[in-house]
Amino acid sequence: MPTPKSVVLLSGGLDSCVALACAREESEVILTMTVAYGQKHSREVESAHYISSHYSIAHELIALPALGEMLSKHHASALVDETEELPHDRRMSEMTARVPRSYVCGRNTIMLALAQSFAEALNADEIYCGFNAVDFSGYPDCRPIFVDAWNHLARYATKRGYEGNPISLRAPIINFSKASVVNRGLTLKAPLHLTWSCYAGGELPCGTCDSCIIRYHAFRENQMSDPAGPYEVEPIYRGL
Amino acid sequence: MPTPKSVVLLSGGLDSCVALACAREESEVILTMTVAYGQKHSREVESAHYISSHYSIAHELIALPALGEMLSKHHASALVDETEELPHDRRMSEMTARVPRSYVCGRNTIMLALAQSFAEALNADEIYCGFNAVDFSGYPDCRPIFVDAWNHLARYATKRGYEGNPISLRAPIINFSKASVVNRGLTLKAPLHLTWSCYAGGELPCGTCDSCIIRYHAFRENQMSDPAGPYEVEPIYRGL
Repeated sequence: MPTPKSVVLLSGGLDSCVALACAREESEVILTMTVAYGQKHSREVESAHYISSHYSIAHELIALPALGEMLSKHHASALVDETEELPHDRRMSEMTARVPRSYVCGRNTIMLALAQSFAEALNADEIYCGFNAVDFSGYPDCRPIFVDAWNHLARYATKRGYEGNPISLRAPIINFSKASVVNRGLTLKAPLHLTWSCYAGGELPCGTCDSCIIRYHAFRENQMSDPAGPYEVEPIYRGL
Repeated sequence: MPTPKSVVLLSGGLDSCVALACAREESEVILTMTVAYGQKHSREVESAHYISSHYSIAHELIALPALGEMLSKHHASALVDETEELPHDRRMSEMTARVPRSYVCGRNTIMLALAQSFAEALNADEIYCGFNAVDFSGYPDCRPIFVDAWNHLARYATKRGYEGNPISLRAPIINFSKASVVNRGLTLKAPLHLTWSCYAGGELPCGTCDSCIIRYHAFRENQMSDPAGPYEVEPIYRGL
């Protein structure tokens, strides 16, 4: 069987970087895609570009400012709303109990729809994404049941699907803990030092947002410090 | 039960104009949305704006130029590709036999995903669209089975869906012939004179593309001429 071709959704964070490394094991990656929907900072998008360059893969940045403007206007997500503080200062146990404020209305469906169109036009067979349902199970559109529903839709959504050859969605790390994501990344020599997880956009990660804390623990469980550089995590978060 | 709120996808063509008129019968329409994905001309987008103004409903134009550029580069649709002639000169019977060249890779999934995000952020309950599976059954993403698959996905794709209250997709004219679409529009006093169906973007419809011919016959079956203005349809198409 010929090697399938794939398009990879790449945010610039840990998860999608490792998903890209997995995709390279199983397919020929012909494009990475980042959707800029009005995030507060561009640091993560820059990381996506660096990661693609590391692998010499073409990178497509899709600007969708109208989405961010609307979400911000209606205070619909802490990731785009300038008036809202980013989620932090919560215990790990609280992070998975409800849909977090960092949820962006229907974001993953938009990103998959765009990836599907590009994949069909470029004659790619698969889409890879870094969805992960473990550490942030509060995101509804990261769950295995969402991936299954997407793959059902894909059978009817495109010409390829109509012809019996739909574009499949693969989520290779969906059931991994964050420590396992790091571990898989290390095994595949993924450029984890180029990734960015922090919700804020300074020169170094803030060390206090949910994303920083989860990342800190994931590297610590792998007996190493974060290769993205030294940053302080406050004592209260270290012992959780 | 309170009146549901809705967001309506409005292309500026006949079908979505009538879908909007239907939506106004059954819901409170809070927004119309048009996705500009790099169509060859902006005439249809202008029509969408006029139709929304007619009803005094807010209109959101979402620019997505990256999609059109990519589709054009890869000759993936005659609707955006400058090097390709628009579909015309086919008999009615040929028009439904295969996926037409005017198919835009995965376009409807993108438009629905965007509408879903806006609907969730604006607390709307429903999305209306003018999908029609009869006259152009060759479009895979206009079929009832696609709408069903979308509504299945919607249960898992958003916070609202997660909470048991998904945003429903309604396609009120999906099984209507084009003549019935016109008839429904006339009954509901929809501003059909403001709609634009032609694939070309001149001052008057070209009268030779697939879309013009189907429209011509739909008005003729309703014993009237097209209120969008006088245009000539060549004799060969009139008698089909």
